[in-house]
Amino acid sequence: MQKISVAIIGWGNVGRGCKRAIAESSDLYLAGVVRRPASLAKHDPSLENTHVVDDITKLDKVDVALLCIPSREVPERIKEYQNLGICTVDSFDEHDRIPGLKKELDIIAKSKKVVSIFATGWDPGTDSGIRAIMKIASITGHTTTTFGGKKGGRSMGHTAAVKAIEGVKDAVALTLANGRGKQKRQVYVELLPGFDADVIEQAIKSDAYFKNDPTEVKFVKNINKYNTLHHEGEVERTGMQVNQIYTAEGNNPEWTANIMVSCIRACISSRDRGEYGTYTFIERPLIDYLPGKTLDEKLEGY
Amino acid sequence: MQKISVAIIGWGNVGRGCKRAIAESSDLYLAGVVRRPASLAKHDPSLENTHVVDDITKLDKVDVALLCIPSREVPERIKEYQNLGICTVDSFDEHDRIPGLKKELDIIAKSKKVVSIFATGWDPGTDSGIRAIMKIASITGHTTTTFGGKKGGRSMGHTAAVKAIEGVKDAVALTLANGRGKQKRQVYVELLPGFDADVIEQAIKSDAYFKNDPTEVKFVKNINKYNTLHHEGEVERTGMQVNQIYTAEGNNPEWTANIMVSCIRACISSRDRGEYGTYTFIERPLIDYLPGKTLDEKLEGY
Repeated sequence: MQKISVAIIGWGNVGRGCKRAIAESSDLYLAGVVRRPASLAKHDPSLENTHVVDDITKLDKVDVALLCIPSREVPERIKEYQNLGICTVDSFDEHDRIPGLKKELDIIAKSKKVVSIFATGWDPGTDSGIRAIMKIASITGHTTTTFGGKKGGRSMGHTAAVKAIEGVKDAVALTLANGRGKQKRQVYVELLPGFDADVIEQAIKSDAYFKNDPTEVKFVKNINKYNTLHHEGEVERTGMQVNQIYTAEGNNPEWTANIMVSCIRACISSRDRGEYGTYTFIERPLIDYLPGKTLDEKLEGY
Repeated sequence: MQKISVAIIGWGNVGRGCKRAIAESSDLYLAGVVRRPASLAKHDPSLENTHVVDDITKLDKVDVALLCIPSREVPERIKEYQNLGICTVDSFDEHDRIPGLKKELDIIAKSKKVVSIFATGWDPGTDSGIRAIMKIASITGHTTTTFGGKKGGRSMGHTAAVKAIEGVKDAVALTLANGRGKQKRQVYVELLPGFDADVIEQAIKSDAYFKNDPTEVKFVKNINKYNTLHHEGEVERTGMQVNQIYTAEGNNPEWTANIMVSCIRACISSRDRGEYGTYTFIERPLIDYLPGKTLDEKLEGY
């Protein structure tokens, strides 16, 4: 069986996690990492023995590009790769924009005969699958999702959004549970010299990622003291006849990377069946994400 | 939108639960109940205002038949309905036989242009979906499923298997957790007069449903004292970077009925796309099981 050729786009925590997850998967191989500028790779020991380029067209044939870049840059990059005939997996996380973008990107994918798994990762993504299963098992009921538990966890989309603000040297945005289905945010920010803390606090609090939740911003001298990669979440459905709870905790970027790497298989199996399109996680059969050469292998543990 | 026409085959606890779940679903309607002999319905208030027949061909057009009958009778009945051009949903639960039967029934479904969702319900079924998602989110790791918790719960397949033994008047088979991924069985049996308790205990313990687990059989005067419809289960995956637990508890036949009724939608959406076949729960996209007329409605809460 020919291995699936994968490119990692971006070299943050998620990109590094994807490299590890690809190495654990015998059906996949890493064609290279796309990073701008590629010359940065010379100083990065984690990229030793890895082909690093600044443009995906400089790599040999790539089946699937994993977009390990800030969520807000994702839609344009999906289009770029779809137009090159390359399948994509991303972890776009703005829930409200998902149905509209999915339809727009679906048209391109179908015309270019590629498959994209869109807006996947932990939530949206596998949590969306959990919510669907809970609804299937309990037709009437009420589902809530709560992030961060008591100690809080690192939200990657939120952290990236703060880091993108001019004047922010480094930041971490934590999410803490604030009652069932509710959360609050704690943001630690290290400022660049000469920037106004009040202006930056206002920019954070008015950002779409934060404006709907209680948000506390603290300016600190060194972010490392407050940093973490941990996150946790709970999906709960209470119904007339069935009650269900799913809890998960772990290293957030590694978790996202595992899911993105599993999605590579759903791209290729869908492409092989000629089912081109841009799909959310719940629009492809779960079996398509699982490793295994035969149906029997994939159904193991069913 | 035309409603999907459904027939319930069998009138035990699961069949009754399906009737309730269909009534909660505005896209479905109950064409009738198939029960042998149909004349029993005259004495059953739960079947008032319901069309009851002893043969499905006596009902008007049926899109999907829900097989609410003992698991061991399921494979033959699926074939019967597939050959009549009717889609089926069942809760066949013998894990080892699933891959082989799925392939056999897939050939018939494709030739008759129908869709069957095979071996669904709680476990196998939605739990299989949970196990798949957990593996997607944590590529390396170890998954265990534990049934019944501390107080135990009613296993429907096990109970039906005991009730099928000659000499058993009534029975309930409870499953209790016995350590992570392990369980033990407690079986309460009400005997018919003139039957030998030792022979029946031996028949239970040598049955495939029981032979691999510690099983205690108690003979009682009145089963009602020991009866329950409650069950619970836990799926757990421990991984290098992510830990996940799913727990669920509820009324076991209602729970199964909810899932079977959700599967009706996956039959019809697959049939409408011309994707005929016999599929396990994880072989159809989760979105196909959800209610909603449009993609936006189905993606709500994604």
